[in-house]
Amino acid sequence: MTPTITAFVRSPDRGKGLARDMRVRWALEEVGQSYDVRLLSFKALKEPGHLALHPFGQIPTYEEGDLVLFESGSIVLHIAERHAGLLPSDTKARARAITWMFAALNTVEPPIFDRDLAKILERDEPWYEQRLHVLEDSIRKRLGGLSTRLGDADWLDGAFSAGDLLMVSVLLRLKGSNILDEYPNLSAYVARGEARPAFKRAFEAQFAVFTAASTG
Amino acid sequence: MTPTITAFVRSPDRGKGLARDMRVRWALEEVGQSYDVRLLSFKALKEPGHLALHPFGQIPTYEEGDLVLFESGSIVLHIAERHAGLLPSDTKARARAITWMFAALNTVEPPIFDRDLAKILERDEPWYEQRLHVLEDSIRKRLGGLSTRLGDADWLDGAFSAGDLLMVSVLLRLKGSNILDEYPNLSAYVARGEARPAFKRAFEAQFAVFTAASTG
Repeated sequence: MTPTITAFVRSPDRGKGLARDMRVRWALEEVGQSYDVRLLSFKALKEPGHLALHPFGQIPTYEEGDLVLFESGSIVLHIAERHAGLLPSDTKARARAITWMFAALNTVEPPIFDRDLAKILERDEPWYEQRLHVLEDSIRKRLGGLSTRLGDADWLDGAFSAGDLLMVSVLLRLKGSNILDEYPNLSAYVARGEARPAFKRAFEAQFAVFTAASTG
Repeated sequence: MTPTITAFVRSPDRGKGLARDMRVRWALEEVGQSYDVRLLSFKALKEPGHLALHPFGQIPTYEEGDLVLFESGSIVLHIAERHAGLLPSDTKARARAITWMFAALNTVEPPIFDRDLAKILERDEPWYEQRLHVLEDSIRKRLGGLSTRLGDADWLDGAFSAGDLLMVSVLLRLKGSNILDEYPNLSAYVARGEARPAFKRAFEAQFAVFTAASTG
């Protein structure tokens, strides 16, 4: 059964692959599962039809028959459990890969996301510079721990997993910032993720949506 | 095999059950699995021995033989997968319960955690009131969506699950604030979680640690 996901008709990141449908597209491409996409305007996010699928009125959602999921982490885990390629079969290695999924979303992403949000919403506030400094300190604490643990390995724990997929997705938000450049092994890790054919297919697909909305 | 978790020797919340070992203790109590606890000072969190277990130098960790996990969400999921009682056996209902786990940690917790952090770190800043207002708006958006979805049900999706365990744990941070009181069904939901015998046993266990550290 072909699942249907939702995405922004016009992503605020202008097709840079930072919207959270990208993670789900990437996971589906890694396992070779085709999918349909339903595009939503910002207005449609808050309409009853979408709120019935996603209580917080966000994207992405994932529909597979009468199963409806939201939260990109949960959707990626669902895909990884249904198909080979994103989680090791060894029970312990699988539990560790899932640990990296939660680490990406609950420990590494929050300060990175807050920094992006502050750059949009708080740029004119009197506290902006100080707040940015606090957030970047907090990001560096996370990246330092991550960089040390990764060392010179290709991926966080053996073969590429859903944990790497989410961690690279989260770190992508820092691309082009000085912060990521301070950790050369993490920059290389992100580049390694971006070089995967499945990443490229997913990136092109979401970029095509943005291009169509901009020229259409 | 009895797992070992780590927790603060002296929790900064003074035993209110807000440190993240509480979630793991609660999950272990729900499934009837006994556990050992290794207590750590703040200093010990950043020492090599602990960093080898937890790359970000936090609590809790979970050791079961040679398996080492961190991230409370991942540990709770691991426990829920190994024992009956925290995830439905139906595949679709299980995927939805896991969605609520991610929603608790990745959507609902971040602004709630930020508010607690701001109350500690930014209280004396000139922008404090304005910043608190922004954070509380953001929290209300999440709680509004959650309250509508919960409606008059006892739990988020059928029987109590690991999704409820994490959501109640996250909302507990708002206890005693006006914000939670604005959503009577969410207040009742939190109280329902706290009333579970497994919650009470977990709470008492972590409170006893704080009491011992304070009087010892």
